[in-house]
Amino acid sequence: MADVFAWSNFFTPLFPKLSWGQTAPILAATHELDADSAALVLPGVLLSLVVVYLASKFGGELSNRLGFPPVLGELVAGVIVGISALHLLVFPESGAQSSDSAIIQLLQTTAGLNSQSAEAVFNAQSEVVSVLSELGVILLLFEIGLESNIKSLMAVGYQATIVACVGVAVPFAAGTAGLMLLFGVPAIPAIFAGAALTATSIGITSKVLSEIGRLNTKEGQIILGAAVIDDVLGIIVLAVVASLAKTGEVDVMNVIYLIISSSVFLLGSILLGSFFNKTFIRVANLLKTRGGLLIPALVFAFLMSYLGAVIHLEAILGAFAAGLVLDESDETLELQKQVIPIADMLVPVFFVCVGARTDIGVLNPTVPTNQEGLIIAIFLIAVAIVGKIVTGATVFGQGKMNRLAIGVGMIPRGEVGLVFAGIGSASGTLSKPLQAAIIMMVIITTFLAPPLLRIVFRDELEPASESGSPNLNSQNQSPFVQESAMIKECFNQDSSAGIPEQASNLSKE
Amino acid sequence: MADVFAWSNFFTPLFPKLSWGQTAPILAATHELDADSAALVLPGVLLSLVVVYLASKFGGELSNRLGFPPVLGELVAGVIVGISALHLLVFPESGAQSSDSAIIQLLQTTAGLNSQSAEAVFNAQSEVVSVLSELGVILLLFEIGLESNIKSLMAVGYQATIVACVGVAVPFAAGTAGLMLLFGVPAIPAIFAGAALTATSIGITSKVLSEIGRLNTKEGQIILGAAVIDDVLGIIVLAVVASLAKTGEVDVMNVIYLIISSSVFLLGSILLGSFFNKTFIRVANLLKTRGGLLIPALVFAFLMSYLGAVIHLEAILGAFAAGLVLDESDETLELQKQVIPIADMLVPVFFVCVGARTDIGVLNPTVPTNQEGLIIAIFLIAVAIVGKIVTGATVFGQGKMNRLAIGVGMIPRGEVGLVFAGIGSASGTLSKPLQAAIIMMVIITTFLAPPLLRIVFRDELEPASESGSPNLNSQNQSPFVQESAMIKECFNQDSSAGIPEQASNLSKE
Repeated sequence: MADVFAWSNFFTPLFPKLSWGQTAPILAATHELDADSAALVLPGVLLSLVVVYLASKFGGELSNRLGFPPVLGELVAGVIVGISALHLLVFPESGAQSSDSAIIQLLQTTAGLNSQSAEAVFNAQSEVVSVLSELGVILLLFEIGLESNIKSLMAVGYQATIVACVGVAVPFAAGTAGLMLLFGVPAIPAIFAGAALTATSIGITSKVLSEIGRLNTKEGQIILGAAVIDDVLGIIVLAVVASLAKTGEVDVMNVIYLIISSSVFLLGSILLGSFFNKTFIRVANLLKTRGGLLIPALVFAFLMSYLGAVIHLEAILGAFAAGLVLDESDETLELQKQVIPIADMLVPVFFVCVGARTDIGVLNPTVPTNQEGLIIAIFLIAVAIVGKIVTGATVFGQGKMNRLAIGVGMIPRGEVGLVFAGIGSASGTLSKPLQAAIIMMVIITTFLAPPLLRIVFRDELEPASESGSPNLNSQNQSPFVQESAMIKECFNQDSSAGIPEQASNLSKE
Repeated sequence: MADVFAWSNFFTPLFPKLSWGQTAPILAATHELDADSAALVLPGVLLSLVVVYLASKFGGELSNRLGFPPVLGELVAGVIVGISALHLLVFPESGAQSSDSAIIQLLQTTAGLNSQSAEAVFNAQSEVVSVLSELGVILLLFEIGLESNIKSLMAVGYQATIVACVGVAVPFAAGTAGLMLLFGVPAIPAIFAGAALTATSIGITSKVLSEIGRLNTKEGQIILGAAVIDDVLGIIVLAVVASLAKTGEVDVMNVIYLIISSSVFLLGSILLGSFFNKTFIRVANLLKTRGGLLIPALVFAFLMSYLGAVIHLEAILGAFAAGLVLDESDETLELQKQVIPIADMLVPVFFVCVGARTDIGVLNPTVPTNQEGLIIAIFLIAVAIVGKIVTGATVFGQGKMNRLAIGVGMIPRGEVGLVFAGIGSASGTLSKPLQAAIIMMVIITTFLAPPLLRIVFRDELEPASESGSPNLNSQNQSPFVQESAMIKECFNQDSSAGIPEQASNLSKE
């Protein structure tokens, strides 16, 4: 039957050498692919997933035993299997050829893949793995949305908005001014670099928060809310600087469109939430065949993700909104449990791929361009960290609150920051050193945030280990124990239910 | 962040116009794809999945209410959304262009996809959906393997082997002889058509068996065992006839290689089963982070699938073997529950895509070539059904047993039969009418088997509804009820646990 699946396509790499996001037009080269080779796309994907899973478990478990959030280990393991080291997981957009991919070489030796089809299989497999990682982050944000209580998120909406705005303004101003005054960088590239400092990676922050069981604390809710708004602001800033870089002036209409569409989308989904929720429950109760609860939820999540993507917001914002509006009920509590294994299957693909795509070569000081970049990078990293931490201080009222944690939670720039670097270099705005510096800043802030977040929350972690659900790290218990744990979880109003609190459990040990 | 995911590839269709499996060499055409368009691959996939899910639920629920197995409804719904009708889900290998895809047109209107990149996005999206459907059938067979008890399967191994051999020999002999004597078809095409009659679609049969809760009856085990062996035999027969068609003589070495490799693979995995099982449990108990049970299982399943694929067996045989050797234990019972939502998410993609790829145009009698084909088809269908039913009679001893059911269970030819048609037409061996006739035979047997299987088992369905698990069609019950159901299920030695018995529940209503 393998041949039935021999319906594959024909690929050529899209992108010139660049480690990250890229919008340059593409030159096509062609490679012949016969059906026998096309049948090897699936084995290629299967091997890639095996690599992803082994990396995520080795990294995650080790990181967990060392007291760090598992996601940090997954990122680092991703770097090890990726373009920077083992070349098991490489992507064409980094300029890699099939000959750079250890998996393709394995297919050539084990599965008789001929070298002339290797390029096509390599690209097909990379394309599929990329989409799987995108589905992974969509499911992560959908799960986070399900766990988040819309009311408690609305309750901190005001502070979250202020934190987000300050968290965008301060790093942008400090970064742009600093580059122009201290390093004599021209205005437009300086603005570009400043813009790259505004982003917040909601994926990494939210994952860490749920791993340490802090998602539904007031701090967690403010961070999450601010990260969402920050993501939207980041997209608007990107539109501004991108048009600045291209035409030298700002495309006001586009900016207005983005502001309106994003507000309508987020507020609209919140206002229509109860309607969506009722409809979902009615449909779920109507269906009697397998997946009667899961499939309607996925349809809703994927439709919202589609909307988010096509109005030039992000797919993940749609997924988060979808999860958020499915309010707590017997159905959604059961749904949460069904989404967990799916997230466990797909989310690691995202984090390992983020690591695998990170070319830490830019950190090599022996490369001349890196040296200048390193100095700028140190400045950018300082601004990136200080700029977000001070925003935490802007949270007013609220009596005793971990303002430092809020600031730290906003530090990781993640993928968003890299989009700026990618677009900047594509438009030729950024000098090589400045681009390298931005990439370094993103890498450092992304990898620094998880352990920092653990530290600033450590003093309060003990109580957390009481709440939340043990069922996911209790696979070695008898089904009975697990079931009762699940039942508890169903009525556990701390809706971080289902997320194990490894770090806190560890700190107890 | 959408742009981060704008790392796409560049595609052109692989195949000349042909509805199914195809091994002809490929001519490449190229299409420009810029990153903005590449970012639309994800929305395309999301929309495709939404279509798949809506189709699977509408079809499955309706079919269920009518007393048919849900999978039949999914297949039919697939035909409706596919190449035969709505063109929502079309694949390039059928010769479809992006302009034939309703989803691509929607992307062009809603997401500003430019027509010159449409082809590339269309092919990228189709590639991803194809692999998702392949992962779907892999997870289906893994789940079936987990539900099957290796001992009870071994217990019927002898009968299963005989049923499989007779089930291959009888249709092959009758089909080939009949075509040569009654229709004056030359030897090689007749042998080709006869070979296409030998296959059994394990995917469809096993899905129906678990849907009606008959997987772990003696009949179910014999059908499953025979279907697996049949699949292996089918691959060997395919190798024989393919080399016959190509060179006019049989590549003996290749046949010997296939016989040895397949035997080593299946027997080896069974013999090493207890070792794999112990290792899996040890690893699962070692891991403390999320997915500590699921990820090792997926690594094992995907590795076995990879092995199955690269030794020119099938990926799904590897997945089945992997599930089979994970013997019943607390861990695997918990694992079964975690695999259910993943299967619910991915399996419908497979069945809806099988339907969507089916071009029922070949059934149109107004097309001249179809008329000749229809007559041959009627003969082939008769042989296909009678040929398998008589094999059921060959089951000896065993006292009271539903021999008819065993025969009927072997009827669906599914994808395997279509590989023959594809290779046959690619090698130019088959005349257009004969090829159409084979495709018709496959369609009819595939769509006929599920309802027939329901009928031959109907008389015994009542007791079945007591066993098995209600938890999946009890989403509208309170979590408590569901949990207790799950606990029951954990110790339910009828390991069809987790599979709802819709049909039987219905027959009770």
